[in-house]
Amino acid sequence: MSSILIKNAMIVTQNSNREIKLGDIYIDDGLISEIAPSIHSEAEYVLDTKGQVVIPGLINTHNHISMTLMRSLADDVHLNEFLEKTFAVDSRRTRKDVFAGSMLGVLELIKSGTTSFVDMYYWEDETAKAVTEGGIRGFLGWAVLDEDKSTQKGAPIKNAENFIREFRKKERIYPLPAVQGVYAASEETFLGAREVAEKYNTIAHLHLSETRMEVYEHEKKTGKRPAEWLDKIGFFYDHVLAAHSTWLTINEVRILARNGVSVAHCPTSNMKLATGGYAPLPEMFREGVNVSLATDGCASNNNMDMLEEMKICSLMHKAHRWDATVLDAQTTLDLATINGARALHMEDKIGSIEEEKRADIAVLNGRSERMLPLSKATAVSNIVYSAHGGDVLSTIVNGKLLMKNRQVLTMNEKAVLDMADERSRELLK
Amino acid sequence: MSSILIKNAMIVTQNSNREIKLGDIYIDDGLISEIAPSIHSEAEYVLDTKGQVVIPGLINTHNHISMTLMRSLADDVHLNEFLEKTFAVDSRRTRKDVFAGSMLGVLELIKSGTTSFVDMYYWEDETAKAVTEGGIRGFLGWAVLDEDKSTQKGAPIKNAENFIREFRKKERIYPLPAVQGVYAASEETFLGAREVAEKYNTIAHLHLSETRMEVYEHEKKTGKRPAEWLDKIGFFYDHVLAAHSTWLTINEVRILARNGVSVAHCPTSNMKLATGGYAPLPEMFREGVNVSLATDGCASNNNMDMLEEMKICSLMHKAHRWDATVLDAQTTLDLATINGARALHMEDKIGSIEEEKRADIAVLNGRSERMLPLSKATAVSNIVYSAHGGDVLSTIVNGKLLMKNRQVLTMNEKAVLDMADERSRELLK
Repeated sequence: MSSILIKNAMIVTQNSNREIKLGDIYIDDGLISEIAPSIHSEAEYVLDTKGQVVIPGLINTHNHISMTLMRSLADDVHLNEFLEKTFAVDSRRTRKDVFAGSMLGVLELIKSGTTSFVDMYYWEDETAKAVTEGGIRGFLGWAVLDEDKSTQKGAPIKNAENFIREFRKKERIYPLPAVQGVYAASEETFLGAREVAEKYNTIAHLHLSETRMEVYEHEKKTGKRPAEWLDKIGFFYDHVLAAHSTWLTINEVRILARNGVSVAHCPTSNMKLATGGYAPLPEMFREGVNVSLATDGCASNNNMDMLEEMKICSLMHKAHRWDATVLDAQTTLDLATINGARALHMEDKIGSIEEEKRADIAVLNGRSERMLPLSKATAVSNIVYSAHGGDVLSTIVNGKLLMKNRQVLTMNEKAVLDMADERSRELLK
Repeated sequence: MSSILIKNAMIVTQNSNREIKLGDIYIDDGLISEIAPSIHSEAEYVLDTKGQVVIPGLINTHNHISMTLMRSLADDVHLNEFLEKTFAVDSRRTRKDVFAGSMLGVLELIKSGTTSFVDMYYWEDETAKAVTEGGIRGFLGWAVLDEDKSTQKGAPIKNAENFIREFRKKERIYPLPAVQGVYAASEETFLGAREVAEKYNTIAHLHLSETRMEVYEHEKKTGKRPAEWLDKIGFFYDHVLAAHSTWLTINEVRILARNGVSVAHCPTSNMKLATGGYAPLPEMFREGVNVSLATDGCASNNNMDMLEEMKICSLMHKAHRWDATVLDAQTTLDLATINGARALHMEDKIGSIEEEKRADIAVLNGRSERMLPLSKATAVSNIVYSAHGGDVLSTIVNGKLLMKNRQVLTMNEKAVLDMADERSRELLK
């Protein structure tokens, strides 16, 4: 494990006082060991970040990372056609495609300053290989659904448990069960997933109330809306991370709050698929629900740029509420950092730049034409409303430098692009 | 004037058939002289664009470019507070600040592939200097408003005319009158601006129906909504370019269509200021209004990235209409290219890549982690939904290479950033 000294930084700490500090950061053995105005210790790597902005690595809490290969495959169509198109390709996918798509995705995450992501897919062992190679943190959710609705070989819940058992001791891999949603999973499946999550002390991920159809169909079938039903059957508890959560009543928001369920909010995906819902974030905040931010997969976004996602998130809510004060820049940055850590029950380890936390850090170019004027007063706004993934110069995960001045050190970029190119030609022909 | 040969490109032509061609482009004496599968002529510069995507230079039809120095100055506040904050700084601004802000802005435009922009401000002669230095096309609107509401020295309409007279023969400078809006300009002022525009054959620019307050106050005063009133007094004609145009009735949309008025749509600015309106683009298309795209100034955006703006534009309308098919990728790219050219009455010269047109071109990196898979089928979606300004490698205006592989050739980037930094510290202290 190498030591890194970051010099002369503007540090957006995201600590409990949301302090912005000017100074140095010493990283040793994967940890942030010291933050001070000036540090003179020797280090293996020294990054002079004068004029740069150092932020906690971004946390993307809902993704289907291998779907990078389906980028721009099914745009501008109604949801049913979107599902048809993506399922048609999906049914032709091989393990190689999942690996190639995951490699492309991990590369994109590193290059845009994301250091942790939550995934939902099958063959997550292929995605785990890409995570291991790239060096980021992967919270890898093996898709769980009823066996009769699954295309997986074997029972999904068993596959998930096998995956978790095999991968849970590996570095930076956090395997977990991820339930497709109420339209594809019975009470038994949901409770089985919870049991596995509790047994191995993982997060339990799911798609929740993304579309009206999902809500109304479930209500017709069970007499309850999805969140009400999941509460009743006893699925919800404080390790549940619910993606989307757009079509919720205030009663359902309170159910999430009462159970300590976190939300993975996906504004771009919801807007692009025109699912009509706007997740009720102001009400979630008021009721005490922890909300994090996510890009969703590349078939519905079409990238995984969390800097762009923050801007779109804030804009969407401001426009929808006719209120420029909602989702202010600081709140929006919180969603993408410390709230993400909280959703993963890693708040003591990641999500902010503080001594004794793991060193998951993104360094942004503060001396660019998009980031001036730069001061403590404008830094957070510039990050949220002006920066994009290309402004990230360096990415550090667990104290290891994954990208330095836009050069990815852990992956052969050309090989990753070539493989993605080749597999996509095969897959989409 | 130098010759440039672009080799092995994927060319998103934006011609009338919206063809995507594979091949070479020969640029000579400022013009696109040949597009063919393979060109072997000698050229001063040869750009091998294998794996890259060549698009018409983007056209940003509403801006206050020198406000880059006010980036992130007044975020997350209600509109009245926004205006108070920006006006307070504005009243302290000097010519030097307008120049420094314009230089920073021109740099940002070049680096994000924008080759033409429409501006509205005073001291546009300072902005003209930045445009001349940077080498892009500036459609520079001198702000016109009633003399008793103006802080300009002298009568705004006279200042505008003097500016137009002095600058209209200069290369790539298109001076024009830009009326602040119905809240700041009388019938006489509006008609004076039209007279000047007609006299010098320029565009007449204005802010139209951005906020409800503007509409209701004007209706209270005159009995007519702004667009109805501007129609009645005879301001509208086919050289008018109306920014925002959000709070319009279908009757007003028809008024714009009947008069051949073009719209400069500013989705990010409208969302961020939460002015509540969603410009009725589907109705504008149906009625035959030409709609172009714009970022507005950096106080309300907070950047001028037209690639980002396209995505936000499409997302906003899809979400608002609960319809994923509106503002599809191709339509959205049209707003930012050929429709912009039409709004400027330059459709025969810019806005598409066709022989005999001026060579205004942006080259995007198609071999990046955000742009794969890349094919004729995905190119436009990738541009609109995944690319950002940082993906632009090279920018050409009027046959001149302004940026090559992210290196700006016409401006001293460090000096521009230093000047902006210094002036903003002075201005904002």
